Amino acid sequence: MTRQQLVEQIYKKRSYLCVGLDTDITKIPKHLLSEPDPVFAFNKAIIDATKDLCVSYKINTAFYEALGVKGWEAMDKTVHYIGDEHFKIADAKRGDIGNTSDQYAKAFFKTMPFDAVTVAPYMGEDSVKPFLQHEGKWAIVLGLTSNKGANDFELQHTGDGLLYEKVLKTVSQWGTPDNLMFVIGATQASAFTNIRKITPNHFYLVPGVGTQGGSLKEISEKAMTKDCGILVNVSRAIIYASTGEDFAVKARKVSKDYQNEMVGYL
Amino acid sequence: MTRQQLVEQIYKKRSYLCVGLDTDITKIPKHLLSEPDPVFAFNKAIIDATKDLCVSYKINTAFYEALGVKGWEAMDKTVHYIGDEHFKIADAKRGDIGNTSDQYAKAFFKTMPFDAVTVAPYMGEDSVKPFLQHEGKWAIVLGLTSNKGANDFELQHTGDGLLYEKVLKTVSQWGTPDNLMFVIGATQASAFTNIRKITPNHFYLVPGVGTQGGSLKEISEKAMTKDCGILVNVSRAIIYASTGEDFAVKARKVSKDYQNEMVGYL
Repeated sequence: MTRQQLVEQIYKKRSYLCVGLDTDITKIPKHLLSEPDPVFAFNKAIIDATKDLCVSYKINTAFYEALGVKGWEAMDKTVHYIGDEHFKIADAKRGDIGNTSDQYAKAFFKTMPFDAVTVAPYMGEDSVKPFLQHEGKWAIVLGLTSNKGANDFELQHTGDGLLYEKVLKTVSQWGTPDNLMFVIGATQASAFTNIRKITPNHFYLVPGVGTQGGSLKEISEKAMTKDCGILVNVSRAIIYASTGEDFAVKARKVSKDYQNEMVGYL
Repeated sequence: MTRQQLVEQIYKKRSYLCVGLDTDITKIPKHLLSEPDPVFAFNKAIIDATKDLCVSYKINTAFYEALGVKGWEAMDKTVHYIGDEHFKIADAKRGDIGNTSDQYAKAFFKTMPFDAVTVAPYMGEDSVKPFLQHEGKWAIVLGLTSNKGANDFELQHTGDGLLYEKVLKTVSQWGTPDNLMFVIGATQASAFTNIRKITPNHFYLVPGVGTQGGSLKEISEKAMTKDCGILVNVSRAIIYASTGEDFAVKARKVSKDYQNEMVGYL
């Protein structure tokens, strides 16, 4: 999906919501466990209930890998089920030497039809570039993350600003705002104004709203650009809104609340 | 596998060789493509031909993920086939917020019987710690990698040494030499003496010998400790030593050459 197509979807749906499919088999409603593929059955119901309210789905690969081959099958079925109107993110935090990153890009962009992969920047340019060589596909590189551990390295001083600032400055030279986004955690709202100065035109994938406590209002006010420029991910607060048979109905209700709030900011 | 068990294997076999199963279906001998699972058939032959010469196998997850569900199946079969006498590394470069890293640890340590996973440090403590909570299992955290991109961030100055030095100092506080190793690229041999000062007792996983050009002699002289302390990985130079029907014979020959050289350093 190109940037123009993504922006069109955002203004058509009046939403920049990304629903995070961090589907944990120990947390889904019990009645689904008799399904042949409980994880896919859960995802299918969530997608059906939310697809008109969000522009993106983010599949957290860890939850699928934890189930082994069956989990990888559920991921494959899910990304195909989503279809072409949503921006499909593999939240995989990959990154390795060039010939290996090439294989990860193949896994998510060719073998599976994802639009984007999250990428860890530590290993530098040749670990990121293979994700930028596929037309209509995106690398979403970790900038400043939502977790406490962000203090350990991302927020440390370098000779060229804090490490995450150096990452934003350096990595933004490797791609363009048409094939490169950054992960910026919603819990880091105080830094958003500064981050926008460094990367004025890039989209951000913003996790950390909902269970992690980030404010949709604050990040929208500080990070939005004239073509939106943010995808706000909510995972657990939507998909586990209820643990009963009404889980999809409740997931829709929470998604609708977020989307309603987004209409006001767009 | 515990550190004591690993060290016992090293001195019993007089080898600290790790064979890297970066199995690329486009590079394996053509006659294997008619097998029901060509990647597993290739790995099985390589393992049978090298198992007495190496103490570890490293599975590069990217090459398996590139094949989708079938690749994940081949990885699962391979790690089971290796058995309990070798230190089984998932070279996966994972790392995410705590509840997600928990799932990755489950994937590689419980769903599959790996002994270790390579982990990217960028997201900090809560992204690494879940890999340190499993008895007899290891996190192998990226320190200074073998690729050109290491210059972009790893070798940048911070207020507390170069970034990779800060990573070594900080991460070594989170685990012990019994559950934590570091990835140090063989192409970074000039830095090994300094690295040993920072982390005198940790094992290093050392990729970059062979195709990438690192020197086994130099890293052995500079990085070895009284209980060895290094696992040297060779991937392409062993597994693609021949592209013909004699691939396993040639893989054994190259492995034997490395192991013979290692006898002299041990």
